[in-house]
Amino acid sequence: MKINQIGEDNFIQQIKAQISLSPSNVVGIGDDCAVIPFGSHYLLLTTDSLVEGVHFIKDKISPVDLGYKAVMVNLSDIAAMGGTPLYILMSIAMPKDTEESWVMDYVKGIQEACKEVNVYLIGGDTTGSKGSIFVNITAVGEVLSDNIKFRSTAKPGDIICLTDIIGDSLTGYHYMMKGESNHPAVQKHLRPKANYREGEWLGKQKAVHAMMDLSDGLVQDLTRMMVASGCKAEVNLEQIPTHIESEDAVISGEEYCLLLTVDSREFERLRNDYEKVFKRPLYSMGVVQKGSGLRFIKGNQEVQIKSKGYLHFENGNENEKTI
Amino acid sequence: MKINQIGEDNFIQQIKAQISLSPSNVVGIGDDCAVIPFGSHYLLLTTDSLVEGVHFIKDKISPVDLGYKAVMVNLSDIAAMGGTPLYILMSIAMPKDTEESWVMDYVKGIQEACKEVNVYLIGGDTTGSKGSIFVNITAVGEVLSDNIKFRSTAKPGDIICLTDIIGDSLTGYHYMMKGESNHPAVQKHLRPKANYREGEWLGKQKAVHAMMDLSDGLVQDLTRMMVASGCKAEVNLEQIPTHIESEDAVISGEEYCLLLTVDSREFERLRNDYEKVFKRPLYSMGVVQKGSGLRFIKGNQEVQIKSKGYLHFENGNENEKTI
Repeated sequence: MKINQIGEDNFIQQIKAQISLSPSNVVGIGDDCAVIPFGSHYLLLTTDSLVEGVHFIKDKISPVDLGYKAVMVNLSDIAAMGGTPLYILMSIAMPKDTEESWVMDYVKGIQEACKEVNVYLIGGDTTGSKGSIFVNITAVGEVLSDNIKFRSTAKPGDIICLTDIIGDSLTGYHYMMKGESNHPAVQKHLRPKANYREGEWLGKQKAVHAMMDLSDGLVQDLTRMMVASGCKAEVNLEQIPTHIESEDAVISGEEYCLLLTVDSREFERLRNDYEKVFKRPLYSMGVVQKGSGLRFIKGNQEVQIKSKGYLHFENGNENEKTI
Repeated sequence: MKINQIGEDNFIQQIKAQISLSPSNVVGIGDDCAVIPFGSHYLLLTTDSLVEGVHFIKDKISPVDLGYKAVMVNLSDIAAMGGTPLYILMSIAMPKDTEESWVMDYVKGIQEACKEVNVYLIGGDTTGSKGSIFVNITAVGEVLSDNIKFRSTAKPGDIICLTDIIGDSLTGYHYMMKGESNHPAVQKHLRPKANYREGEWLGKQKAVHAMMDLSDGLVQDLTRMMVASGCKAEVNLEQIPTHIESEDAVISGEEYCLLLTVDSREFERLRNDYEKVFKRPLYSMGVVQKGSGLRFIKGNQEVQIKSKGYLHFENGNENEKTI
């Protein structure tokens, strides 16, 4: 059987089944970060790769933006656990005829993101490749043990929220592919901003029950949260914060805002506090229920969403897969 | 300018020059691991990638061996700092038609190494690629602050030592390429064993002044140690522990034993203790001197070594580059 016939989530489940050794106090494979207890804190570790021709097209993204994005993608995972990002390591494999200026601009982009977020590049690995460029960033963060948030702890009755408008990444991707790189959404796609301040703040709120970041689209990521939590989600498409059709927005990947569930009794207070601190809305758009799966409604009618969003191995439109 | 015209060490220097933010208490880019202070310990972080067609040929190495090797390569970096390995993260990018059995065997190899060394796979990232397979392992270790060893602290008068025979990896590579996979050296090339117990023990010895692991060949790695320490090394080719010509052994990469310098006044005692604990020799083969560079001698004659060993970006024989 080929890897695209299994699907990413099944593949990760299979790895998890084979790896029986994780000590019980380490939260292993399946959440946004690996979690290691360290005194009163947890150490958070996460790693993400961007592959030329799959995650980026060299002609379509500047090396500065690629470096910036590679860091932000990882810091988003730290934010998703309620953590504070601290350090990053970079790995790059590239053909030997890669321009020095391209690589140094890539490092410049990493450095721009590091400065903005106040994290430090502390090591890495550089090597050759045949044909395409592979970049990988590993990020290290920390969180007080009491403040950590998992994707598996959503509870029936919780309000489902997003920290940002979704869909712009998909819009930006389409404009980028058409060569219209001046469209403002292109910048959102090429230079996503991890919600690291929001993640750290939300980590401190007891009313936040579950949290993860939105990397593969709302349909897929909310499904993962519901599977992990053993619950069902009902989402009102009319409440989705987006500039595009909500049916499209829910499959837009690489958004890198945060998806969270909040205790309904605390929701109004938390939303007010959040909006006072961040001067922008916390968007609610659904509720967690008993059961399983995902249900989208629009004016009391159930709506079927056909596409699942970004899938790493599945067959399909090649362009869609580079989102 | 192309990346192969700069050279890996210069490239890393350029990155280091651009990254000015590292706080002074974090040892940044340039040693075997990144080092983060954590109470009375240092946290050690290292990352290494293996790229299909550069570091491995899919037909020549089983996925089980590849997984095992990818872990050991990283644990060797932890050992090189005197540390204890604790956790690993895996990243893999692969074409969508990769066989499921290949990937699961790769994970099995990771698991074999983890079990042997008592470390835990705690997370990672799986994604698609176009054409070639790219695997990356990040390892986390720890070391008591007093026990950490750097490559930059060799002192004139020190005895230069190796923890194992070198050259078998090069021999194994040549037999592997000829299809003679039953030759015992092939196993050494495909399934290297990180000297993690030796590294941990040597970390505790005050007489050990500098340490690093041997990944790119003695010529290149000892040069790096001497540059970092501001010293010169004189190596007696007749004392190189090897089954092959010493002139070839000194450029054999991917050996993953440890290279260290020991206070000459403590050397005999340390060697005796080492040999009692590990039931195998600690090999001495040279001395650190004032000055700079590397000098090989054979029967009082200086010998010039032409090849430098494994270089990640430089032009040259493509097969040699896959070592």
